[in-house]
Amino acid sequence: MPTIWDRAFAHRTQRMQASSIRELFRITNQLDVISFGGGMPAHELFPSEQIASITQHIMANNAQRALQYSNSEGYPPLREYLAEQLRQQGVSASPENILIVSGSQQGLDLLSKVLLDPGDRLLVESPTYMGALQVFAPYEPTYVSLPTDNEGIDIARGEALLQTQAKALYIQPTFQNPTGVTLSLERRHALLALTGRAELPVIEDDPYSQLRFEGDTLPSLLALEHERQQQQAETSYQGQVIQVNTFSKIIAPGLRVGWIVGPAPVIRKLVLAKQGADLHTATLPQMITYELLHAGFLEEHLPRLRILYRQRRDAMLTALSEHFPSSVRWTHPHGGLFLWVTLPDDMDTIAVLQQIQTHRVAFIPGAAFHPNGGGTNTLRLSFSNVTPERIEEGIKRLGTALHSRVAHA
Amino acid sequence: MPTIWDRAFAHRTQRMQASSIRELFRITNQLDVISFGGGMPAHELFPSEQIASITQHIMANNAQRALQYSNSEGYPPLREYLAEQLRQQGVSASPENILIVSGSQQGLDLLSKVLLDPGDRLLVESPTYMGALQVFAPYEPTYVSLPTDNEGIDIARGEALLQTQAKALYIQPTFQNPTGVTLSLERRHALLALTGRAELPVIEDDPYSQLRFEGDTLPSLLALEHERQQQQAETSYQGQVIQVNTFSKIIAPGLRVGWIVGPAPVIRKLVLAKQGADLHTATLPQMITYELLHAGFLEEHLPRLRILYRQRRDAMLTALSEHFPSSVRWTHPHGGLFLWVTLPDDMDTIAVLQQIQTHRVAFIPGAAFHPNGGGTNTLRLSFSNVTPERIEEGIKRLGTALHSRVAHA
Repeated sequence: MPTIWDRAFAHRTQRMQASSIRELFRITNQLDVISFGGGMPAHELFPSEQIASITQHIMANNAQRALQYSNSEGYPPLREYLAEQLRQQGVSASPENILIVSGSQQGLDLLSKVLLDPGDRLLVESPTYMGALQVFAPYEPTYVSLPTDNEGIDIARGEALLQTQAKALYIQPTFQNPTGVTLSLERRHALLALTGRAELPVIEDDPYSQLRFEGDTLPSLLALEHERQQQQAETSYQGQVIQVNTFSKIIAPGLRVGWIVGPAPVIRKLVLAKQGADLHTATLPQMITYELLHAGFLEEHLPRLRILYRQRRDAMLTALSEHFPSSVRWTHPHGGLFLWVTLPDDMDTIAVLQQIQTHRVAFIPGAAFHPNGGGTNTLRLSFSNVTPERIEEGIKRLGTALHSRVAHA
Repeated sequence: MPTIWDRAFAHRTQRMQASSIRELFRITNQLDVISFGGGMPAHELFPSEQIASITQHIMANNAQRALQYSNSEGYPPLREYLAEQLRQQGVSASPENILIVSGSQQGLDLLSKVLLDPGDRLLVESPTYMGALQVFAPYEPTYVSLPTDNEGIDIARGEALLQTQAKALYIQPTFQNPTGVTLSLERRHALLALTGRAELPVIEDDPYSQLRFEGDTLPSLLALEHERQQQQAETSYQGQVIQVNTFSKIIAPGLRVGWIVGPAPVIRKLVLAKQGADLHTATLPQMITYELLHAGFLEEHLPRLRILYRQRRDAMLTALSEHFPSSVRWTHPHGGLFLWVTLPDDMDTIAVLQQIQTHRVAFIPGAAFHPNGGGTNTLRLSFSNVTPERIEEGIKRLGTALHSRVAHA
């Protein structure tokens, strides 16, 4: 390695290194492996024909708009559409509350750029979304991990932590990645009461809530904050919840179109960060997304997605009951792409993954989702992009491997 | 503004504010204004029909690849194509030397993230590209401005500065934005000799070199560094030049596809930064770009672009000679989108722009391109996205305004 570059790298990025866990993910790309690793949506339902015809229409009628430089805030009709959707949920949003970003990953990066100073305390669920930790890393926050259970953050146990001085709380309240767990309505209220008193900004990451296939819809933290403020007739609206969202799970991730909802002054700050980051999100994917939404695509598409993912979750739950040792526990998600498995305390899932490679099945070890350590006996399974037959076969393989290891432990 | 957010913003982004100069640009978007402000490519030649048919083909044959999550490095055939182009220029590149980014703006942002610590010295041309200054700002470098003339950086005058301790030199050597000036071959050699001795990394921003419509092609700094090392049979290749490039000016900016060329260890570091920033660049625009290149689109397209831009530059030079006061000077670019105008020393182009709004013509005041002050009597004119007739009319309007102000000065 040329020494000149070793010297040149910024101090804070010296630790941006491919982790051993991430290296382990390479196994998930091997062809004969059944992978429950990556959180990839089902490709079978990607709207390829619609995208072809929409693109043809755009190129025939609006090519200059699709291909010239555009504004950093995003394609105006798409921002207006998203604002209207929010108003239907009771959130008094206008386009100035919306910034289009290149996937929610970029949303989190821009928020980090605008909010985080090195050493700032950031509250996260334990476990939390690994991809977010990767985004936050170069901004050097200190993580405070909040305890969770099968209803999300355990507010009673986390109450003191929620009132310590911190820059923000980062949370996925619905069908969380990695656990699949959803924060209950009661806890949503309790959480907002606490963060409101503590004046703690909340970053709500909400990629999965439209993929609910069981149970009742819950209001997002963003919608609930607005509802609470209207009920209490508060005049000093602080707009503490910023929501990061994406079309990756409900249309297609390769288009890289997501959005941020927040108070207008925050969005203005984020627009400056967006200008510096990449000027604007590619316009053609934004226009394709808008035309799909405008044509009512989601009305038929979401029910299809929910049926597909429910089948796959059910196949996984059935296979887990059948093939896993009785000492193993797992979550029962009502939506989303993931479920979370807890092995007996003395087992290490990184070691398991390294040693079961002959079984040709892959998962993500839970340690990757714990910035402050822990979770060594846990793992994440994704059921979204594997057929029910392969799910049965993969869980059987994993169960066989676990049975032999539990027996040896 | 909600005070909670005022408190929450990161210290280093407190100064990320819409500048008064940038606010002034809003004038350029008004309909009846002839704008020489933004550096937008000519939309008349955007390949809309080709993009429609290519997209149809991709969606019919390769939709999963276009729409699923993809790797952070970029679409492999596009990386291979770019490496092959570099090999034809004598640069021994392979795909591991290439990272696809969302426009060269993102390339600069990722390089900043990987290289810059607050307070690092960054060498720049004076004037330099305003958009790059906007990218660098949140990383808080200290700028060292190198003197330039009609052949680019004045190496003799800048020699001492080039040997002071700095993190990198940022340079647009060919048809520079904002001046349109090109660094001469002799100076390219002299610059590389100096930066080689000083072990100073060089960031070569090269968006315009394929838009040459006059004079002989010059090797890029990247190609020249490789050539020099082969001649000197150096064994310790340091790979000091990183090139940032884009398809924005030769295909279409709305697709947001650019790339970085660099030593493999630097690219690996940048890939981690890219993962954190937005996972990957949207795949459909990458595949569209590759299919256009693979079909030989540029072989017919570049000559058309060069003819168009030459006509517009010529129209502007003619109009400048005819309508501008004799005390005003301007550059004679051999390619690219811009030329640079210098008014008498005592004139302030920000004041001129504010006061000539009734003339319905716009430009960018030169101060915006000077991070350390200066350039108040200069301005940038873009001829790329205005027809020759409108160029003649716009320069006439500007000339009328300047004549009256020169007379009053």
